[in-house]
Amino acid sequence: MSGNSFGKLFTVTTFGESHGAALGCIIDGCPPGLELSEADMQADLDRRKPGTSRHTTQRREADEVRILSGVFKGKTTGTPIGLMIENTDQRSRDYSKISEQFRPAHADYTYMHKYGIRDYRGGGRSSARETAMRVAAGAVARKFLQERLGIRIRGYLSELGPVRAEKLDWDQVHQNPFFCPDADKVPEMEAYMDALRKEGDSIGARINVVAEGVPPGLGEPVFDRLDADLAHALMSINAVKGVEIGAGFGCITQKGTEHRDEMTPEGFLSNEAGGVLGGISSGQPILASIALKPTSSLRLPGRSIDVNGNPVEVITTGRHDPCVGIRATPIAEAMMAIVLMDHYLRHRGQNGDVSVSTPVIVQL
Amino acid sequence: MSGNSFGKLFTVTTFGESHGAALGCIIDGCPPGLELSEADMQADLDRRKPGTSRHTTQRREADEVRILSGVFKGKTTGTPIGLMIENTDQRSRDYSKISEQFRPAHADYTYMHKYGIRDYRGGGRSSARETAMRVAAGAVARKFLQERLGIRIRGYLSELGPVRAEKLDWDQVHQNPFFCPDADKVPEMEAYMDALRKEGDSIGARINVVAEGVPPGLGEPVFDRLDADLAHALMSINAVKGVEIGAGFGCITQKGTEHRDEMTPEGFLSNEAGGVLGGISSGQPILASIALKPTSSLRLPGRSIDVNGNPVEVITTGRHDPCVGIRATPIAEAMMAIVLMDHYLRHRGQNGDVSVSTPVIVQL
Amino acid sequence: MSGNSFGKLFTVTTFGESHGAALGCIIDGCPPGLELSEADMQADLDRRKPGTSRHTTQRREADEVRILSGVFKGKTTGTPIGLMIENTDQRSRDYSKISEQFRPAHADYTYMHKYGIRDYRGGGRSSARETAMRVAAGAVARKFLQERLGIRIRGYLSELGPVRAEKLDWDQVHQNPFFCPDADKVPEMEAYMDALRKEGDSIGARINVVAEGVPPGLGEPVFDRLDADLAHALMSINAVKGVEIGAGFGCITQKGTEHRDEMTPEGFLSNEAGGVLGGISSGQPILASIALKPTSSLRLPGRSIDVNGNPVEVITTGRHDPCVGIRATPIAEAMMAIVLMDHYLRHRGQNGDVSVSTPVIVQL
Amino acid sequence: MSGNSFGKLFTVTTFGESHGAALGCIIDGCPPGLELSEADMQADLDRRKPGTSRHTTQRREADEVRILSGVFKGKTTGTPIGLMIENTDQRSRDYSKISEQFRPAHADYTYMHKYGIRDYRGGGRSSARETAMRVAAGAVARKFLQERLGIRIRGYLSELGPVRAEKLDWDQVHQNPFFCPDADKVPEMEAYMDALRKEGDSIGARINVVAEGVPPGLGEPVFDRLDADLAHALMSINAVKGVEIGAGFGCITQKGTEHRDEMTPEGFLSNEAGGVLGGISSGQPILASIALKPTSSLRLPGRSIDVNGNPVEVITTGRHDPCVGIRATPIAEAMMAIVLMDHYLRHRGQNGDVSVSTPVIVQL
Repeated sequence: MSGNSFGKLFTVTTFGESHGAALGCIIDGCPPGLELSEADMQADLDRRKPGTSRHTTQRREADEVRILSGVFKGKTTGTPIGLMIENTDQRSRDYSKISEQFRPAHADYTYMHKYGIRDYRGGGRSSARETAMRVAAGAVARKFLQERLGIRIRGYLSELGPVRAEKLDWDQVHQNPFFCPDADKVPEMEAYMDALRKEGDSIGARINVVAEGVPPGLGEPVFDRLDADLAHALMSINAVKGVEIGAGFGCITQKGTEHRDEMTPEGFLSNEAGGVLGGISSGQPILASIALKPTSSLRLPGRSIDVNGNPVEVITTGRHDPCVGIRATPIAEAMMAIVLMDHYLRHRGQNGDVSVSTPVIVQL
Repeated sequence: MSGNSFGKLFTVTTFGESHGAALGCIIDGCPPGLELSEADMQADLDRRKPGTSRHTTQRREADEVRILSGVFKGKTTGTPIGLMIENTDQRSRDYSKISEQFRPAHADYTYMHKYGIRDYRGGGRSSARETAMRVAAGAVARKFLQERLGIRIRGYLSELGPVRAEKLDWDQVHQNPFFCPDADKVPEMEAYMDALRKEGDSIGARINVVAEGVPPGLGEPVFDRLDADLAHALMSINAVKGVEIGAGFGCITQKGTEHRDEMTPEGFLSNEAGGVLGGISSGQPILASIALKPTSSLRLPGRSIDVNGNPVEVITTGRHDPCVGIRATPIAEAMMAIVLMDHYLRHRGQNGDVSVSTPVIVQL
Repeated sequence: MSGNSFGKLFTVTTFGESHGAALGCIIDGCPPGLELSEADMQADLDRRKPGTSRHTTQRREADEVRILSGVFKGKTTGTPIGLMIENTDQRSRDYSKISEQFRPAHADYTYMHKYGIRDYRGGGRSSARETAMRVAAGAVARKFLQERLGIRIRGYLSELGPVRAEKLDWDQVHQNPFFCPDADKVPEMEAYMDALRKEGDSIGARINVVAEGVPPGLGEPVFDRLDADLAHALMSINAVKGVEIGAGFGCITQKGTEHRDEMTPEGFLSNEAGGVLGGISSGQPILASIALKPTSSLRLPGRSIDVNGNPVEVITTGRHDPCVGIRATPIAEAMMAIVLMDHYLRHRGQNGDVSVSTPVIVQL
Repeated sequence: MSGNSFGKLFTVTTFGESHGAALGCIIDGCPPGLELSEADMQADLDRRKPGTSRHTTQRREADEVRILSGVFKGKTTGTPIGLMIENTDQRSRDYSKISEQFRPAHADYTYMHKYGIRDYRGGGRSSARETAMRVAAGAVARKFLQERLGIRIRGYLSELGPVRAEKLDWDQVHQNPFFCPDADKVPEMEAYMDALRKEGDSIGARINVVAEGVPPGLGEPVFDRLDADLAHALMSINAVKGVEIGAGFGCITQKGTEHRDEMTPEGFLSNEAGGVLGGISSGQPILASIALKPTSSLRLPGRSIDVNGNPVEVITTGRHDPCVGIRATPIAEAMMAIVLMDHYLRHRGQNGDVSVSTPVIVQL
């Protein structure tokens, strides 16, 4: 397996399986001089952490991250930041079934085809546990972007199956277990989830992410467009099946006069573009939206085959999220932060805001 | 500007401005032994070419591609393939206005912020003319995938503004100027476009692309997922604002029991996943869909500012597509071909089907 | 700091400072199905380990490597292999001097210019301790190359300052603390080193590395030549100032008739090329040679400046290798293994010897 | 063949065969605002051009470069710069022999093993003609480095077989056909070359390259060290078998007290390091030296085999350089310029000297 790295100058490389010894990552390219401690990452990790409400998997992981390198006297030095999270809650269980069967809509079948071998414990590398390291790395990017550039990245759940948020009240997002910005819809979501759990089924969701304060000029035209890299980053999150920037699929029925964001000396009059023009940030908020599929791990039986090609009926026991979308908000925020950080460094150099990191020492 | 390359082992790098001397690209990593001539690319280029119907821009470009290297005696040698298309239809015109103003929803403003200089003639590098080289490069990938692996990549326009194709009849796709697979809808589309042209407005569209015959095992988990790379490739096409794989945004309201594609010894029972599981191809058809925004070049006046920040009223004259989506089908097919080709080589090595290119010469 | 990764398909990314919590690396792209345990890496790590003779630094590091991911039931799965070595021997000492001064010929001055901050404890990231992870990663590559392809990679010290090995007896290489292949020269080397230690000075050395059994066809012409990547990999080892392939600098005074390796049906008649022609392996042994500078950490005073630009006299106390070359043989072997592994995968695909990893499961 | 690109942010990708239609390259990442015309590249191309004296191949190539994109109104725009040189002197000749035989010390044998097919006309892609595009791209980097940073890059031939330059008089370098900085040695070199031509043999050479005015802080520690990238770049030049930085192989017999470059408030007291410490530029001149093997194309018969493995006697007719080193100076300068340019952009961002390219336009 290659392709476990993301970013050209701010490069995040992750490792780790769901039930392996540990998860980890290396952040290569973080500018020097940034104050950083485990606490800066823990806050975001805790938001992603399972078992925080009855609506997510009851697996309990401390998800305590440890900084192994790259920070000296509380500041980043510009050297690679090694991070590690030990896996603590690995219940010993009987894997004989799962090791022989391909769970529908899981990576079991494709991994087997690609590698001829797979770590079937909890999905191994294909488990969403891998995203914990994305959140940790994203927290570093967010801190830099916030402190050095005043960029603020926030996300929320806008749709939980049939239930849609109709208001965007940022203060509400962290007042409920769904990251829902519309308080009035929370009871409906809770009722929906409770019914779903009884059914034993799962449901999809939509997450929106917004970056405010992004300066104009970030991104590259053609292949490395800021929006193309965002699409790459967001589609790489487990269970994501669709990505929109700005008006997204709504633009299909828009006329040019509706879609084009007119400008006046006071600024843009709309933001259908979602903050990106020609692949480069315009200075408006970056708007992205993603669709997450329903969890495929269900206790409701599904038809499948075993490794020998015989028909089997699969029932997934174990602890799973009935709606993976619920915990995806911090992950989507993290990926957007990593993309913006990478493009900022590509634009301004790997030392980031050079004025900050330029040494004040004697020049021979 | 960096980021003009796409692909890790099958790498396509393009250059060229709308009104510059020429467009070109280098395909680095094409396996040896593939029969290749200009004609193989010209067919796809002609499908993308402007001026083929009254519904696209009347700019006339021969788009004649020339192979400058990498092919010897009609076969690829494994060396980089240099391609060039001379720009022929560059009407000399007055650029004084456009050079001073930022056209709404164009890259003018962001390029100026990023570079402090821009080739404003016809949009320079941000013009969709750049996609001609993607189509040429994609044609090489398509030929390899078709001949060596039997992979077939086809696309069609499924929505033109409010008009939706309701049938998928592949034979119809090239029987009309819209790449519409539903013959019954063509008159409606023609009427819609004619009215739109009179109005002076433009409209969005949706394109679907399908790859059949893709073997299971292509793609990488985590960041370089096949679907993530597809999202990157498709979102990098001018005017694209959204990308879906399989069920796409439809999965938000799907339940796990609806979305999961069950398997039997005879095969999958559905394809909600769009042919990708855990970032790796499953052997089912790869299904992607994209949304293209309406052209921003309109003769209907729009508010904007000039380079000095003064308010101006912008009217875009010149020749433009009232619906860029119409010509986007070959481009989307090309980008999917490039992504599949790249992942095939990553999986099997840069010589592609090794058995084909392994020499039968003496071993010292 | 970016650039902590090496390899395109077999990618090694390292982290860690000399006196930080731990060293680690991620191997991304190791083919599945390779039997692997810590023991496979420990053997090479122990050869590089300090404190094994009176001729190397007396710092004592267990250098015990731990596999954190990528191995399941004793076999690699194709997922990234996370490795970690805890730093155990970090003597608490007074760093006030070294934190204020720039040691001559060290990275102190350049790191400070680049980052404006540095972890001065034991040289931080610029310490040769970083190479421990290269050796661990190299061991994985060596095992694959040996088991799957029968490629054997071995190195030796050919020159220790003025003392040159005149015989190449592979059996002798591990019979002495210098990796010297000429038993007769060992006493001379020991005497030389003992005198050097008394002096308080240090000395340079030459290491040769040979790869046998490399099939023809590995490597890329032009920029990614096999020899160019080898030069990159070997020059990236701390203290290396020169790299030669085959005849190396000797070719300056060679005539074409002397240098060209003639061929007969039985094989090549010489190997001045060092096994690489046009950037691609010829099937002959790959021959590389490197020069390592003398350690700059000396207890003999040297002139320098402090961070304020004032003149100072620097005396380096602490534990150092009087000849870094002595411990460099396993490192050079490791880097050659990583380069060959990467080019083998580029040539044959990331699954390596496909026939080995292709699953024997049902095809839907 | 992949690997035809060099550089991470200043990326040069080349294409073209010796006897193909044209050579070309794309420079992706050149900062905007640099004044650039064909003339800026032609000067360096003419220095590399064959047929300028009786000591080089008599093949006559105009090597006239054409800028196809990336330059508008005489200034770079930040978009990719497409360059092309048409091949003009392709004598039609009988290739039957060369197509069947493997010339000793050429890439014929290895290309055939790797690709199973090769363009044997004049060596195809393995011909030194490919370096023409490196020189063109290097000229762009040199111009930027010179104008924006005052960095000066110069090279010279220090050894021609047994004849060594003993003086370094920069003014002499372009006063003779050898790029020899020691006028007194020129007659000796001419006599040597005349004798060599009569013999029908060839000879090796050494080229030195120096970069002055490089600011401290360029380069990356660990794998992407400035010296490691230089070694990669220089070893990738046809016929190069060895690379040295600073003291190079001389450091083997140096003691630490000799090698370490001491510092005083006035500056360094020596430059054994060659301007690089810990992989990062120190502010001293960057010193590199390379060894080039003798040409393998000789009219003196050599033993080899044909494609069927039968023994043959190879005699290379056609026009060749008896000493490829003679024309290598501009190529080595170009590669050093490309490496420094790339690391400068990595350090400061792809817009290069940001202050220059930051637009003076209104901020919405």
